[in-house]
Amino acid sequence: MDITRFMNKFNEIERQLSPTSALRLSFDNISPETEEPPDGNKRLWGVPVPPFVSEKVVSWIEEEFNEAPVFYNGNSVLKKVENVRMIDRYNTKNPTVGTLYLTATHLIFVEPDSNKETWILHMHVASIEKLPLSTTGSPLLIRCKTFLSVTFVIPKDSECHDVYTSLLKLFQPVSINKLYCFNYQPNKDDFPKNAGWDYFKLEAEFKHMLVPNEAWTLCSMNEKYELCDTYPRQIYVPKEATTLMLISSSRFRSKGRLPVLTYLHNNKASICRCSQPLSGFSARCLEDEQMLEAIRKTNSNTDYMYVVDTRPRINAMANRAAGKGYENEAFYENIKFHFLGIENIHVQRASLQKVLEACEQKSPTMSAFINALESSGWLKHIRSILDTSSFIANAVDKGVSVVVHCSDGWDRTAQVCSLAQLMLNPYYRTIKGFQALIEKDWLAFGHKFSERCGHIQTDAREVSPIFTQFLDCTWQLMSQRSEAFEFNERFLLILHDHVHSCQFGTFVGNCEKDRLDLKLAERTFSLWGYMANHLNEYINPLYKPNVDEAIKANLAPQCIKFWRGMYSRFESGIHPREPLGDVLLDSKEHCNSLEDHVQHLTKRIASFKNYISKSAKKLQDATSAPGKVNKELSSNEINDNKYNYDKKLSELSAADDDHPLKASNMSFASLSLSAEQSSPPQALPEEINSVAVDWKPMRNVTTCSCSTPFDQFSKKTHCWRCGDIFCERCIDKNVALPGHDSGKPVPVCRGCFRQMQKQSP
Amino acid sequence: MDITRFMNKFNEIERQLSPTSALRLSFDNISPETEEPPDGNKRLWGVPVPPFVSEKVVSWIEEEFNEAPVFYNGNSVLKKVENVRMIDRYNTKNPTVGTLYLTATHLIFVEPDSNKETWILHMHVASIEKLPLSTTGSPLLIRCKTFLSVTFVIPKDSECHDVYTSLLKLFQPVSINKLYCFNYQPNKDDFPKNAGWDYFKLEAEFKHMLVPNEAWTLCSMNEKYELCDTYPRQIYVPKEATTLMLISSSRFRSKGRLPVLTYLHNNKASICRCSQPLSGFSARCLEDEQMLEAIRKTNSNTDYMYVVDTRPRINAMANRAAGKGYENEAFYENIKFHFLGIENIHVQRASLQKVLEACEQKSPTMSAFINALESSGWLKHIRSILDTSSFIANAVDKGVSVVVHCSDGWDRTAQVCSLAQLMLNPYYRTIKGFQALIEKDWLAFGHKFSERCGHIQTDAREVSPIFTQFLDCTWQLMSQRSEAFEFNERFLLILHDHVHSCQFGTFVGNCEKDRLDLKLAERTFSLWGYMANHLNEYINPLYKPNVDEAIKANLAPQCIKFWRGMYSRFESGIHPREPLGDVLLDSKEHCNSLEDHVQHLTKRIASFKNYISKSAKKLQDATSAPGKVNKELSSNEINDNKYNYDKKLSELSAADDDHPLKASNMSFASLSLSAEQSSPPQALPEEINSVAVDWKPMRNVTTCSCSTPFDQFSKKTHCWRCGDIFCERCIDKNVALPGHDSGKPVPVCRGCFRQMQKQSP
Ligand SMILES: [Zn+2]
Ligand SMILES: [Zn+2]
Ligand SMILES: [Zn+2]
Ligand SMILES: [Zn+2]
Repeated sequence: MDITRFMNKFNEIERQLSPTSALRLSFDNISPETEEPPDGNKRLWGVPVPPFVSEKVVSWIEEEFNEAPVFYNGNSVLKKVENVRMIDRYNTKNPTVGTLYLTATHLIFVEPDSNKETWILHMHVASIEKLPLSTTGSPLLIRCKTFLSVTFVIPKDSECHDVYTSLLKLFQPVSINKLYCFNYQPNKDDFPKNAGWDYFKLEAEFKHMLVPNEAWTLCSMNEKYELCDTYPRQIYVPKEATTLMLISSSRFRSKGRLPVLTYLHNNKASICRCSQPLSGFSARCLEDEQMLEAIRKTNSNTDYMYVVDTRPRINAMANRAAGKGYENEAFYENIKFHFLGIENIHVQRASLQKVLEACEQKSPTMSAFINALESSGWLKHIRSILDTSSFIANAVDKGVSVVVHCSDGWDRTAQVCSLAQLMLNPYYRTIKGFQALIEKDWLAFGHKFSERCGHIQTDAREVSPIFTQFLDCTWQLMSQRSEAFEFNERFLLILHDHVHSCQFGTFVGNCEKDRLDLKLAERTFSLWGYMANHLNEYINPLYKPNVDEAIKANLAPQCIKFWRGMYSRFESGIHPREPLGDVLLDSKEHCNSLEDHVQHLTKRIASFKNYISKSAKKLQDATSAPGKVNKELSSNEINDNKYNYDKKLSELSAADDDHPLKASNMSFASLSLSAEQSSPPQALPEEINSVAVDWKPMRNVTTCSCSTPFDQFSKKTHCWRCGDIFCERCIDKNVALPGHDSGKPVPVCRGCFRQMQKQSP
Repeated sequence: MDITRFMNKFNEIERQLSPTSALRLSFDNISPETEEPPDGNKRLWGVPVPPFVSEKVVSWIEEEFNEAPVFYNGNSVLKKVENVRMIDRYNTKNPTVGTLYLTATHLIFVEPDSNKETWILHMHVASIEKLPLSTTGSPLLIRCKTFLSVTFVIPKDSECHDVYTSLLKLFQPVSINKLYCFNYQPNKDDFPKNAGWDYFKLEAEFKHMLVPNEAWTLCSMNEKYELCDTYPRQIYVPKEATTLMLISSSRFRSKGRLPVLTYLHNNKASICRCSQPLSGFSARCLEDEQMLEAIRKTNSNTDYMYVVDTRPRINAMANRAAGKGYENEAFYENIKFHFLGIENIHVQRASLQKVLEACEQKSPTMSAFINALESSGWLKHIRSILDTSSFIANAVDKGVSVVVHCSDGWDRTAQVCSLAQLMLNPYYRTIKGFQALIEKDWLAFGHKFSERCGHIQTDAREVSPIFTQFLDCTWQLMSQRSEAFEFNERFLLILHDHVHSCQFGTFVGNCEKDRLDLKLAERTFSLWGYMANHLNEYINPLYKPNVDEAIKANLAPQCIKFWRGMYSRFESGIHPREPLGDVLLDSKEHCNSLEDHVQHLTKRIASFKNYISKSAKKLQDATSAPGKVNKELSSNEINDNKYNYDKKLSELSAADDDHPLKASNMSFASLSLSAEQSSPPQALPEEINSVAVDWKPMRNVTTCSCSTPFDQFSKKTHCWRCGDIFCERCIDKNVALPGHDSGKPVPVCRGCFRQMQKQSP
């Protein structure tokens, strides 16, 4: 079948089947349980067709493609190649042999012996290289944005060529409208399409900083993106700033990115961000100068403020020839001007390239690796970003406001403004706060994700790991002060991978306006919605919310580390099979479950004691004053009671002694002898069996019961009811267990969920 | 008081007071509780004098020193200096001001504001430097073998000089008999003096490898160290080896270190160790050749074996001029000879020196640090040791025997033989096995600890971090395969520090004979005895005992890391306040406690249920057939029973409803209504209160209740009864809690221990 023709049709069909397409296109769509299609539904290519798809469309597809496509795990396969050898960089000696499937969204390699699968999302492919023919076939080297690097050796050169040309078409679309997010469909139970899109509102974030206030106001002049089309509609500026100042300053700044507020500290010191002024060798703009003075005046602590140009002095000077440049201290009163030395996107891109080359060397010496790492300059750049961020954070912490810019104010400025806030404010070190920070300083204020991450075909010189560096710097801070962060390393890796995957619309486009124009909130899912459903995977168990307000980075060179967890992520044998943090979190959850259960049992014992004491009293009354009892029993009402009472007592004594708690508790409870007994009538054995006391140890658990193999990145989760271990897909229900005192909903596996549904009416 | 005179007298007195000296000389002697001296005992300098010290000695001491010495925390103070400023390498801006105490064993710096104390054991001092006078006083730079580096600025130069000269005398004794271990007294409850000395027997270790057997025999020729005085008395050689072969081979090898067995794998492949042959340019020894052939023949798998010379080829060649050298493949049949490139002790010493200089640079650039680290060659050397060890381990794993030597066979040979065994055999990756490995390949087979660690005044060129590198390589393996090791990083750090502290006799002397001659087992304590009392501090919570037999090191340069935990240990701001592993271990213990408690409560509920069912039956009988009950009550015996029964029932109904379980359970239990009731009659409230359900969170706990401050190296321990957090010193009791089903003794604090003693008769 001709792939181009197929793909065109496929896309057409798919648009018809949206939004709740039953064509399980994507990896994330695969349900671990076989689901029966609704009765009477037609199937197309083995997949049930949802009711809203007309018979006409179905038959039209069937006509068009009388040859039914191959499927792998619910994914329609465009190409299937057998006897492919997979060689990864770290395991060149023992290649594994398996089958390669090319689907519309993934390249999937399946090793039949080990049941292991390697999934590569087309959007994650960074480059594809066809290497010279070898004795065993044609090698195809695929480098990924996730730093996986893998070679497939395909026996027939023609087949290799086929896969190669197909991948070239698939991995980097020309149009933004072809990105994965416009096809992607999560599990239908997972989360609704609108989830996440409304989590963060710029106004709410500023309200959080008590803005607007007497010094800062919301400016409506960018409502239609007239002042600056890469800024958000809501911009916050000094109350003193006049319309003329705002317009003039915007015209005097590169890309119209005038100085606006991004962060207000609790001491009135602020961080404002902008782009470089169009000053050239001597140009000045009085209103821009007034604008900066207005910013300074919002903070009465000091009579000066800093203007931080994140660029090396020489870069800034060079820009003057192009009519751009930097602020002249002679014109701008009351500012202290600082150059800091973060290099530009081209230097950063080349640096990461060298890091990857350092890691890819074939049997290098120790010196060769260290020298290559050093000459890549990567750690120097990371340190330089942290250094600049620390400068800003320290200034603000001491009460001095800072205005930050680089050239266009959307790369280095985004990095250091967000990192300074991360250091200053514990809110940004929470999961929600970190997302809000990205939403504000990267998404709202503009960062060219499409170009920097190479989402679509673009000038290769525009690609640069600016956001990766922001995550790297965050990781450096985390490894120095782990207790200050609510999130863990996996959180950063997931962010990194999904910024590149385009599975979600969140990072598509370069600014707020782009995202509105693309109608992403209606057409795609939000990463924040997805992440909200997986929060337990991102928790740092060492987190202490009440740690110091501001944290400082240790900039000593021996404290800036090479992030193996990111760049050597797929290197086998250096990562623990279960991250310590995951095991700790699991152990803490086990404790919580047991504590809750102990509370419950203790209360149960108290109510038993109470019952015993009452019933003993009754027994005493009965034996010591039988006449009185007999007298009381003469009334009808009490007679009835006695009837029931006796009946229940005989039920009690008939209870199976081997299972002393079985089926008996309902009876005690309905005896209602104890007025204090507050717990509802429930079956004790159910209560006791509902909480797993022993949790299955994580050691040597290599697959979930759904047969998904666990690798170093999988989060293993315990079912709180049976104590068995499952993959994230198999634990998607939270219910309250009768054996817990708190009644808090907790994770249970599907099997347990079903059993509990049977038990409770 | 003249310090030298005092010290001389002090040592004299102390010898008299030993072995259970009441002069609380050492840090480890301080009991967190004030202990009252036995009544009527005399006190000397405020410390109770034990009964066996004669009155005469006491008055003689008092006469001699009419000026009573100052004490700090039970330590007699030789020198006390106030207003000292402490500057550490990483905190040069804010020096702390405090008091410096010089005792016979420690330098103690006390910060009065923060209650923080810095203790420096004299034996840990590596160098003392008096720096040029500054405006605030005389600086004294002290570098420690623990990689702590600290400067004390003492206001008066004369006082600084005094401290300086005293320290010079104290930090590195001339005689081995002046080492700390001969003074050191642990807490008297801690462990007996003989504990640890008999934990490891060479014969037992070899028996573990099924040696002797049909191929290997115990040779008695070294019983009096005649063959080789740096070898153990028991040596294991091939059964085929004749007396002539052993004697001749021993004479043909440097220092008499003939080839003997150190490890036999389960596939018959072995590791033998020796020193270089005295081959010069052409000398040969037929018996030595026969000896190696005899070793080869013990393994029928292959017709060859490896001889590994760990040295670079050029070093081995140079040795030929001095009449030493290496095996000539032309003379030795059936061997494959390999040079591997581990540098000598001088290169390693210089390398570590450069690492420390790299870390001590004042505001270095990233490149300066990375370049300095690279040019130190440290990681290259570590990798080279791992590489050689991997070569040996791989050979043995594949069934090929290996004979290993370097020059004298006690530095590089010790490193690679022990590391190869660590890779090959999971036993050596347990706490006990790792100690056994050190006991065998470092202590029994000889390593010059006195010189290499600079225990005593010695040629500075003999000092070298050979053992530190062994620990570093172990750490590299651990960080690659954490689940394969029973122990954690702290275990390695404790070993490192005590190899240098000489607090225990274990690492004193250079070989088995030295240690026997010094009678260390009688005169000093063993580190193994001490460590046996602190095992819970060394557990790696990720350990999986049933992991793969042999593990392989990943030698890719990006996997060889700089061990910050060792060399940058005292750098603030890069280590988490509580190591993740400790928190995990604690959380797992909490789970264990709760599981045990749940078991207990569940059983309790079962017995309650049983009781209720029986008593309900009784009540039913009583109400439905009162005549029958009355009839039964006519017998005396039953009347008596009834009396008791009624009495107990009224006790029951009189029980306080607010504390429903208080004082009531004794009654149920002694009712003996249920024959199945197996648990002994105990008070339920005591049971329930005996297990802490909530454990105090570790966050923000900065001191133990004994006011010992917790730092990054402290192990915090929970009391299982009250759930509070204590230091290691305060939790020294293990008792079974009534609320646990297992009856397993668990850690409780001293307060809880006392309360439990009061409760139980
Ligand atoms: Zn379950
Ligand atoms: Zn699963
Ligand atoms: Zn306690
Ligand atoms: Zn304590």
